[in-house]
Amino acid sequence: MLRCDELTKFSREPNAYCRTYLTPEHRAAADWLAEKMRETGMTVREDSVGNVIGRYEGQTEQARAVILGSHFDTVPDAGKYDGNLGVITAIECVATLAATGRRLPFAVEVYAFADEEGTRFTTGFLTSSAVVDGIINFPLRHVDQDGKSVADALEDYGLSVENISTAKRHSDEFLAYIELHIEQGPVLEENDLAICPVTSIAGQTRLSITIDGKAGHAGTVPMPLRRDALTGAAEMIIEVERVCRADDRLVGTVGTVNVSPGALNVIPGEVEFGIDIRSGDDAVRQSAVESLLAFFRTKAKERGLEITTEVKQTTPAVACDPELLKIIDAACADVTGRSLQLYSGAGHDAAIMASLCPAGLIFVRCKDGISHHPAESISLDDADMAFRAMMRTLERLAESWAPV
Amino acid sequence: MLRCDELTKFSREPNAYCRTYLTPEHRAAADWLAEKMRETGMTVREDSVGNVIGRYEGQTEQARAVILGSHFDTVPDAGKYDGNLGVITAIECVATLAATGRRLPFAVEVYAFADEEGTRFTTGFLTSSAVVDGIINFPLRHVDQDGKSVADALEDYGLSVENISTAKRHSDEFLAYIELHIEQGPVLEENDLAICPVTSIAGQTRLSITIDGKAGHAGTVPMPLRRDALTGAAEMIIEVERVCRADDRLVGTVGTVNVSPGALNVIPGEVEFGIDIRSGDDAVRQSAVESLLAFFRTKAKERGLEITTEVKQTTPAVACDPELLKIIDAACADVTGRSLQLYSGAGHDAAIMASLCPAGLIFVRCKDGISHHPAESISLDDADMAFRAMMRTLERLAESWAPV
Repeated sequence: MLRCDELTKFSREPNAYCRTYLTPEHRAAADWLAEKMRETGMTVREDSVGNVIGRYEGQTEQARAVILGSHFDTVPDAGKYDGNLGVITAIECVATLAATGRRLPFAVEVYAFADEEGTRFTTGFLTSSAVVDGIINFPLRHVDQDGKSVADALEDYGLSVENISTAKRHSDEFLAYIELHIEQGPVLEENDLAICPVTSIAGQTRLSITIDGKAGHAGTVPMPLRRDALTGAAEMIIEVERVCRADDRLVGTVGTVNVSPGALNVIPGEVEFGIDIRSGDDAVRQSAVESLLAFFRTKAKERGLEITTEVKQTTPAVACDPELLKIIDAACADVTGRSLQLYSGAGHDAAIMASLCPAGLIFVRCKDGISHHPAESISLDDADMAFRAMMRTLERLAESWAPV
Repeated sequence: MLRCDELTKFSREPNAYCRTYLTPEHRAAADWLAEKMRETGMTVREDSVGNVIGRYEGQTEQARAVILGSHFDTVPDAGKYDGNLGVITAIECVATLAATGRRLPFAVEVYAFADEEGTRFTTGFLTSSAVVDGIINFPLRHVDQDGKSVADALEDYGLSVENISTAKRHSDEFLAYIELHIEQGPVLEENDLAICPVTSIAGQTRLSITIDGKAGHAGTVPMPLRRDALTGAAEMIIEVERVCRADDRLVGTVGTVNVSPGALNVIPGEVEFGIDIRSGDDAVRQSAVESLLAFFRTKAKERGLEITTEVKQTTPAVACDPELLKIIDAACADVTGRSLQLYSGAGHDAAIMASLCPAGLIFVRCKDGISHHPAESISLDDADMAFRAMMRTLERLAESWAPV
């Protein structure tokens, strides 16, 4: 936890923690992390997209590795633990192994991912995607708010666009990817539990709905003659909540509403709102989306409104590896004496890495479920339990998985 | 209608009709109207706040007057008929009397009000209020978007702040105020009727409602643990519609909604929305407001939300004079053969003038109920019927009201 505090000094501003991809503070934090990795005895390198990678060899040289990883970039005005806790804990695990000279049947690699939040270039999971895909989907032409492209920023940082594909790793190099991350939600706290394994990372559908009615004078158009886009939208917003409340495998949110013309004395003629639906089960999510769209069309017709629907994004759910999940679950139970499994509503590098090797994720309780905010908080006891669960996971892997 | 076309040349811009208080285009339109009044034989003057007033004497000098009036300022990108039709029709009525040398038992004064929309200084009914109140409520320090005050603009226009109180008139000078205005709503069109008398001008309550819930990650907070400010607000918005639909004496509109933080992947933590409730009956309006506030508080409590309510404005309804209404109703029926009475959901100078003398208002059908928009449209037949109804009103007043 002190090291998470220390990392906050690498920030764009002193009073609002923010560290984004390919900035001077990224450089400074990467150097600091490399130093901490070296102190444990790991071999450290930086890959072609700015990830910092430490390797602690196993009982045999060039054994396949278990990756412990998370990200060290942040959102604007961030908390201290999102991503960084996973990186620091991974280093601590290796430090603990190294302190006793303990070698496992596999190597351990620590991946500190350089861009997961995508704050600067509105690119999420950028650098774990490069580990999986190389340059294929690398968004070289995305620009930051000053118009600087990813490609130019990479060159400024001292990296070369020509080398990006060298960040790519291969399945046969790895046994597993394991990530520790704060929950960013309130369920562990509700269940009075410090840590738990994650079963899957939710799939997501983002929709934009536009309702067209008829604007008019708020004083002169009688209620039966109105085609109010907002009251129609309000019924749809409530339906999103109703549908998602009815199935605990779903969450659904309307986070944006834009009303036109947006004057107190004018009946809304057009309303646009955005919906975010997530589920660990793609069929459940898809069925909810279809049910909602059908309701919206019926409701719009009833009210004489026009409706335009646009699917902005669809991301399938990613299941954590079932065998690895069992091991992590047992490791968490070793520490807490209890078992609870959650799915993750938020995206994580683990979902990307799952296409490279078996991936697992451990959640740590955070206070009031708050994240992406300076009030992000965890307890020392919980951090310790998380560390011990990671160590127990490595031990259990060593017991159950023979070296390859 | 041609004169309403002609008036559009006095506009801030050639392609978007806009004429606001104390501007060069106000000056030019005032001079043009004064000239049109003079051509009928009226005595014309401009009062201390820029209203243009023509007087056509009755059978005896200095008889009490019936005022025919409306306004000649506009909203931005206005239609041609809002206000201006009433001014032009009033001048035509006097022109018709004068053409035949007809004198009535009362004088007729035409009031062309200089500021009703309040577009420039966000002051509504400014210059009819000065006729009723003099300087008492005159907002000398209100400023336009360039920071120019009403007081400075008056002086620039050639008027004197010292003289404002001379705009005030006295009850015993007048028998009645009668205004012709487009309906700005769709009810006459729905009823296939050109014109009708207005019973009252709606009272209005404007409310600002702020709902505080708890922001959170759209993916990680399960539905039962949410305190979503927007879904709570959506239920309240629907209740405004439900309550106002249930009583045809009410209209209610939510025209503005602001969602914080307003991101697609964040549960709304705060929502502010604005409500406009109107009725011709103050008790009905007040009861609806109380019922809504009670519902909002109950709903907020159910959902664990905080609610703050603020009454931004309360304006009582103004009843048109019952005796005058009967006369106008009969005059309209003389022309259309039918009788229908509406209340006005929009405010009019007639509501202000009602505190000076008996006031009446005649509505003219406008296409699709559209107003405050370049598409504002009336038919030639309707304009003619409106003119004839005004003339019939003067005739009926002459028959029923002895000179005083």
